[in-house]
Amino acid sequence: MNPTKVFLSEKDIPKKWYNLAADLPNPMLPPLGPDGKPISPDMLAKVFPMNLIEQEVSQKRWIDIPEEILKLLYIWRPSPLKRAVFLEEYLKTPARIYYKDESLSPAGSHKANTSIPQAWYNKQFGIKKLTTETGAGQWGSALAFACNLIGLECKVFMVRVSFDQKPMRKTMMQVWGAKCIASPSNETNAGREILKIMPDTPGSLGIAISEAVEAAVSDTTGETRYSLGSVLNHVMLHQTIIGQEAQKQLKMIGEKKVDCIIGCAGGGSNFAGLAFPFVCEKIHGKKITIIPVESAAAPKMTRGQFRYDFGDNAEMTPLLPMATLGHKFVPAPIHAGGLRYHGMAPLVSQGIVEGLLEPRAYDQIKSYEAAMLWAKTEGTICAPETSHAIACTIDEAKKAKEEGKEKVILFNYSGHGLMDLVGYDKFLSGKLESYSLPEVELQKSINSIKDLPKAERRKTGKW
Amino acid sequence: MNPTKVFLSEKDIPKKWYNLAADLPNPMLPPLGPDGKPISPDMLAKVFPMNLIEQEVSQKRWIDIPEEILKLLYIWRPSPLKRAVFLEEYLKTPARIYYKDESLSPAGSHKANTSIPQAWYNKQFGIKKLTTETGAGQWGSALAFACNLIGLECKVFMVRVSFDQKPMRKTMMQVWGAKCIASPSNETNAGREILKIMPDTPGSLGIAISEAVEAAVSDTTGETRYSLGSVLNHVMLHQTIIGQEAQKQLKMIGEKKVDCIIGCAGGGSNFAGLAFPFVCEKIHGKKITIIPVESAAAPKMTRGQFRYDFGDNAEMTPLLPMATLGHKFVPAPIHAGGLRYHGMAPLVSQGIVEGLLEPRAYDQIKSYEAAMLWAKTEGTICAPETSHAIACTIDEAKKAKEEGKEKVILFNYSGHGLMDLVGYDKFLSGKLESYSLPEVELQKSINSIKDLPKAERRKTGKW
Repeated sequence: MNPTKVFLSEKDIPKKWYNLAADLPNPMLPPLGPDGKPISPDMLAKVFPMNLIEQEVSQKRWIDIPEEILKLLYIWRPSPLKRAVFLEEYLKTPARIYYKDESLSPAGSHKANTSIPQAWYNKQFGIKKLTTETGAGQWGSALAFACNLIGLECKVFMVRVSFDQKPMRKTMMQVWGAKCIASPSNETNAGREILKIMPDTPGSLGIAISEAVEAAVSDTTGETRYSLGSVLNHVMLHQTIIGQEAQKQLKMIGEKKVDCIIGCAGGGSNFAGLAFPFVCEKIHGKKITIIPVESAAAPKMTRGQFRYDFGDNAEMTPLLPMATLGHKFVPAPIHAGGLRYHGMAPLVSQGIVEGLLEPRAYDQIKSYEAAMLWAKTEGTICAPETSHAIACTIDEAKKAKEEGKEKVILFNYSGHGLMDLVGYDKFLSGKLESYSLPEVELQKSINSIKDLPKAERRKTGKW
Repeated sequence: MNPTKVFLSEKDIPKKWYNLAADLPNPMLPPLGPDGKPISPDMLAKVFPMNLIEQEVSQKRWIDIPEEILKLLYIWRPSPLKRAVFLEEYLKTPARIYYKDESLSPAGSHKANTSIPQAWYNKQFGIKKLTTETGAGQWGSALAFACNLIGLECKVFMVRVSFDQKPMRKTMMQVWGAKCIASPSNETNAGREILKIMPDTPGSLGIAISEAVEAAVSDTTGETRYSLGSVLNHVMLHQTIIGQEAQKQLKMIGEKKVDCIIGCAGGGSNFAGLAFPFVCEKIHGKKITIIPVESAAAPKMTRGQFRYDFGDNAEMTPLLPMATLGHKFVPAPIHAGGLRYHGMAPLVSQGIVEGLLEPRAYDQIKSYEAAMLWAKTEGTICAPETSHAIACTIDEAKKAKEEGKEKVILFNYSGHGLMDLVGYDKFLSGKLESYSLPEVELQKSINSIKDLPKAERRKTGKW
């Protein structure tokens, strides 16, 4: 029998993070302040520790991973590369389908790849406490997990509707010593203001971000900072161990080239983590199709615009150059909570601008069908976000069959769905709805940000 | 840095199951029929397929694992051997603590090691449908997972109280195409009888077993069989890949000897899977302390008796020679549902009789304290059952510190606790209760089986 997966030993874990910013054909546009001028690193100092701000603005291609961080990543890394032999057989495809299994981290997704370094750098900088927001709970769980191991206090503002629907996510964070409260809360001005106007609001990620940032910057001891689980450059950076491991593992299993890289993309981090080392290969001449997959309910990459926009609903963040639907956009209540964000990481957005990436959008019904086929053939239950990557993978494998071509596909299995079975239950009982953003709503949302600075257009690719 | 875990490649997976029955100093006592006489394999033919009955009564030391089963086990196996370096540091112990991580199977526990072969052998024998019971849901999920991959119908009778408390377990089984219904149900005579007398009963494992067996044997097409997730010889057999992998991995990480083997034990299967290959070493002269850990709420090994008893509440199974509290025993509602069984696998029970195993009982409060310390140091959230093995491991590591002795401990991390966070929630809010079986209840339960045949006493060890 041919091997169907490749484990790496600990000594083979990547020792450096890869920074795509160093290799992009055109330099990244800078974040802007409220006055429309580029912000300086100092202006972020109340929100993030300086060592992470340095990573955020770094142009260095490779950044060393401290040994103490590696030791913590060893709890579950390196992650296996697996081949989906049963899915291949079912599809009767000539494609060989591989995936990185990032669901094996203690918190159940790739998010721990950045929560560990973020907590560690904050601790190094003398920080005692981190605040963050979480929607469905994947990121809040991952940061709670990391803070617990590293010895930081952790406070998670969890969107009210998810807080009520998924009490076990809260318990998970509490087991790891974090405080998890429903947002909007009475603990911040932002929360109190909202509650005054809308006492029964289900909350939103935008509100939760505002509360978490406020809770961090208003701590007068200066010992609290805010932590974000996606979008920012340093988050993408921390995830690149996924793709670097995959490069080694593909070689070990005997694949000389990969034709197609796929990852679901909400803020962009699991996609970037797998894809960026391959984007580097593409920049240097390799022919690879690289596909970030978004939800048709929040289609910033396929139907949004590339321009400066705020990262949050309450306009507390700097303006970032990104694919966006407008920061006031309220996404439909799809189960893939991680794909409900209005914008896309600047590094991923720039990759699209440069013509290096080919985004695609999938509806949640088609994605759950893919998740069910995956469970039927490969046996595991994937996160609702991950199902979008699987739907795209299946389409690519079918295309290979139609074309009668061999093809190597690699996708990121970003998380398991064991804490999110409610969506499966709805699908099985025929109650799951299809959501595709109506054009009218899209135009309305985009119009609301038309006065924000336009991001300078590039010569290649989209926009 | 020293490596903290060892992966095996697929080619290193054990190719044979190990049968302890072939090596026990005294032969196993046979199962008895209702007339008190040894039963013949034929008498089980309506319940199990003949190829599994052959394994059940086999005296062969090694039994080949068919290649098609290996291919399915490869979905997650071989499982890693990991070293609990952070727990060691916390305890400041000279002990080196290793564990087999069996939580990585798609259903979340070691149970899939036997559900896959059981489904496969049934399929080979021409069976179309399997029935089973499940308490907390681990076994029902694992069998649903296996039947889905192998192409069998699957019907799971889930104890009513768990069915209502944990709707997501049912969804999990449904994703894998199984039918999961609350027990007692209206689909069997056994269920209807109970519902007539006690319409509001929360159900019990005993009732659910009776329903599952009845549903199998009453199918007039002859194409349905029953499947059991623990207790029986062939189940122990299938789990022995765990211990065989561990033997290789300990060598690879540089350990020449292991001093202590620990596993939680409800029906005995995860314990046996890890321990039996080491019991073999012990029989052949190695000095190893081997500890099955039970719940103080169901202390059959430490306070029960070794005698013939029924495997189920309704007296539908043959009489098995085992450590038991009596088949009418109703355990306290501890969260470790898998440890609530009244009896212990005959092979494990005989191991105790022979003086090869040293059982211990832990209370659920102490076990949850251990689980919390584990989450704090090693980062993962364990199943409530597994917490009992961790509690014992911590005690052994502390003893090593007191004695100032180096020591190698290996325990089985049998499953994750992500589907069972309710118990953690209770622990965190101070609502978890301590349960130790009162002597009066124990005597009452044991007295109720005093007329059943006594198992012949052995010369060595307990009883």
